[in-house]
Amino acid sequence: MKRLLIANRGEIAVRIIRAARDLGIETVAVASDADRHAQHALLADTVVNIGPAPATKSYLVPEAIVSAARDSGADAVHPGYGFLSERAAFAAAVADAGLTFVGPDADVIEQMGDKVRARQVAAAAGVPTVPGTPDGVADVAAAVAAARETGYPVMLKAAAGGGGRGIRVVADEAELVAAFPQASGEAASAFGDGRMYLERFVRNARHVEVQVLGDGTDAIHVFERECSLQRRRQKVVEEAPSPGIDERIRAEMTAAAVRLCRQVGYRSAGTCEFLVDDETGEFFFIEMNTRIQVEHPVTELITGIDLVAEQLRIAAGEKLGIRQSDVTARGHAVEFRVCAENPDKNFMPGPGRIAHVHLPGGPWVRTDTWLAPGSQVSPYYDSLVAKVVVWGHDRATALARSRRALSELVIDGVPSTTSLLLELLDEPWFADGSFGTGTLEQWLAQRAATGVSA
Amino acid sequence: MKRLLIANRGEIAVRIIRAARDLGIETVAVASDADRHAQHALLADTVVNIGPAPATKSYLVPEAIVSAARDSGADAVHPGYGFLSERAAFAAAVADAGLTFVGPDADVIEQMGDKVRARQVAAAAGVPTVPGTPDGVADVAAAVAAARETGYPVMLKAAAGGGGRGIRVVADEAELVAAFPQASGEAASAFGDGRMYLERFVRNARHVEVQVLGDGTDAIHVFERECSLQRRRQKVVEEAPSPGIDERIRAEMTAAAVRLCRQVGYRSAGTCEFLVDDETGEFFFIEMNTRIQVEHPVTELITGIDLVAEQLRIAAGEKLGIRQSDVTARGHAVEFRVCAENPDKNFMPGPGRIAHVHLPGGPWVRTDTWLAPGSQVSPYYDSLVAKVVVWGHDRATALARSRRALSELVIDGVPSTTSLLLELLDEPWFADGSFGTGTLEQWLAQRAATGVSA
Repeated sequence: MKRLLIANRGEIAVRIIRAARDLGIETVAVASDADRHAQHALLADTVVNIGPAPATKSYLVPEAIVSAARDSGADAVHPGYGFLSERAAFAAAVADAGLTFVGPDADVIEQMGDKVRARQVAAAAGVPTVPGTPDGVADVAAAVAAARETGYPVMLKAAAGGGGRGIRVVADEAELVAAFPQASGEAASAFGDGRMYLERFVRNARHVEVQVLGDGTDAIHVFERECSLQRRRQKVVEEAPSPGIDERIRAEMTAAAVRLCRQVGYRSAGTCEFLVDDETGEFFFIEMNTRIQVEHPVTELITGIDLVAEQLRIAAGEKLGIRQSDVTARGHAVEFRVCAENPDKNFMPGPGRIAHVHLPGGPWVRTDTWLAPGSQVSPYYDSLVAKVVVWGHDRATALARSRRALSELVIDGVPSTTSLLLELLDEPWFADGSFGTGTLEQWLAQRAATGVSA
Repeated sequence: MKRLLIANRGEIAVRIIRAARDLGIETVAVASDADRHAQHALLADTVVNIGPAPATKSYLVPEAIVSAARDSGADAVHPGYGFLSERAAFAAAVADAGLTFVGPDADVIEQMGDKVRARQVAAAAGVPTVPGTPDGVADVAAAVAAARETGYPVMLKAAAGGGGRGIRVVADEAELVAAFPQASGEAASAFGDGRMYLERFVRNARHVEVQVLGDGTDAIHVFERECSLQRRRQKVVEEAPSPGIDERIRAEMTAAAVRLCRQVGYRSAGTCEFLVDDETGEFFFIEMNTRIQVEHPVTELITGIDLVAEQLRIAAGEKLGIRQSDVTARGHAVEFRVCAENPDKNFMPGPGRIAHVHLPGGPWVRTDTWLAPGSQVSPYYDSLVAKVVVWGHDRATALARSRRALSELVIDGVPSTTSLLLELLDEPWFADGSFGTGTLEQWLAQRAATGVSA
């Protein structure tokens, strides 16, 4: 690998350019018209314009990317995250053009991108998924039998229905027996089909994911990340290790992720996402992301492993240079996503020109950003402007240092979520790690209701 | 400790403010007239003006510092490095004012600051110093006898002389016998005293230092730093661990440093400096610095230990919270000192106003600096403007990443040594770690002679 085209923008493009440079690989950036003077375009050795600002006319056009790679003499393409990173057809197009795709093979992307097939892979690898009745049940007796398999509480949902309509949660068999006839009747009248899906309902769920690296033959894990703090299914704060799982869950979950990787001969960095039942300690595979994650730095800070460099090495055909026994964790890392949004106006994005920016620095603070004075925050793209990632020898130290780091951050010219992140650091449930996937939204709702955000 | 006054400026003041903030301690900055808008003054909770720009009228006036501490309600004073940091009288004045001095007791500072007394402490602790004849010898026979003790090569120097005058290096006894009469005769005619000092001459020397932490009772080491790359006795690049010592030397040298600390009941962070004979593997204690060092971040990056926070904890009366077995090293770290000097004009300092600054960032790059757009680099102070500190899982990775980091650094408005540091990274002797205390100056002389610096 001599010259790498980065098919992305923003902080991840900057991150990938840095990893390539560390390995002595030349870099080619692609930039839309709106990104001519963006940081990733300025930092790369070469930049190619790929079209107008809307991503559908530039960053999301496979042909434009492949042409840019060919014209610039690149021999490899890194897709970053988002955009084309999990489109099997794009990976195939890159390979068809004789270029190296930095990621797994197209058929693995496709396989893991299909929820049904991914569940089959998990089953084959002995990795638990949320217990449920894929085919639906038609009567109370079948529902009771199924629920004995899945375990309670159980979520009842019309097999023919869509969205959240008609969903009921029952705590035990008595409630199931009482609720089924009415639920099934409603489904029958609404969809002409009374069959119901049953699925275990996880009341207090955590979102924990395992970072993996595979070279097609061997696979290792690089520990887990806690990602429960989400708003509208978007992660806001991530950390490693998870404060919410014990060593048993950690050992079993990471082993499960490695089995899953081996099952598909996974080649590249990837992430296996799990739902953890905080009450029972059970965990269930949800899906696999076949790309680098936004939150990969927390894993890097506790392990010292450069995940993007590993992606590049594996893509270049190298075997895994890291044995599982070489992967050790030290301390605790937390990532705060800073977005150009107004948290007091329902997170309305605020595009604009950066008049002044002062990034936090000093010991154990890493800021991954594409911001510089004069940077233009465009309405066309994701509002993530910086990731403030902080390490400490324990979680309390990391959080204290995070408060300092976020306090140093100054972004003038656009709104930002910095103040909200600082507020979050004052919450006892955040400080003690006792949160689940619903906690952040509950807190935001309460905050809005009590007028804090008025 | 509730409120800490930082009796310093520049990057180390910023560093100390950050450590204090991480521990929830309020900060008071002191600033000369020239530093009203300096970064450390802006970052601290409170700032006190202590007088005109020349350090002799502000940062070097103990009374001004103690008054500022009293007036601002501070209960502790951190001296940083340089300025008043190793003046026993200042430490005493702080203590006399009822304030906590963040450093060892005044008598320990005094003891270790006196070369003769420091050598006595070393001898008592069984720590080797450069073998020599403190009292001088008067004739060839005594010289031969003494040299059999010190070992060859031996440096001959007039006991009554000063500076480098009349120094001769002899390789063996034959050379000593031949050289002594003439050297002694010259000394007799020049100073009226023919007695000669003999001292082992270390031809290929490395400067390696051991970081220590003591709480008055217990003491531990935090590994060593390689500091051989110096210009006019000023360190330019430092790293940890040292690429030039093996595990035996490391084990013996760190143990010696701990013995030395225990000998004096050392309380705070300190550094024991050693000269390592690259030919024999012997090491000799030179001196102890009873303060935080400029290069402390390389130790922090490989161990995860916050040395400034430890200083603050110890000063607050806590016992060492870190056992020796907790101190583990991971990977390699290198620090590059960036100075506002013109390396092609004999390192002439170039004060001025910073028009624009872009600091390197991203994974495993820590930049400790006080620079911001508009910062004034004053002719009154040290020219150090930034320390770019880089970590890698091995030395080669750290150096590759350093090249990337230094390439990202942009400082407009003053000259800087960045380009010279990048040149240094291309030198094979730097890449393979085969250098001593004379290497950098030889290289600079050669560079000047071949017109590279014209």
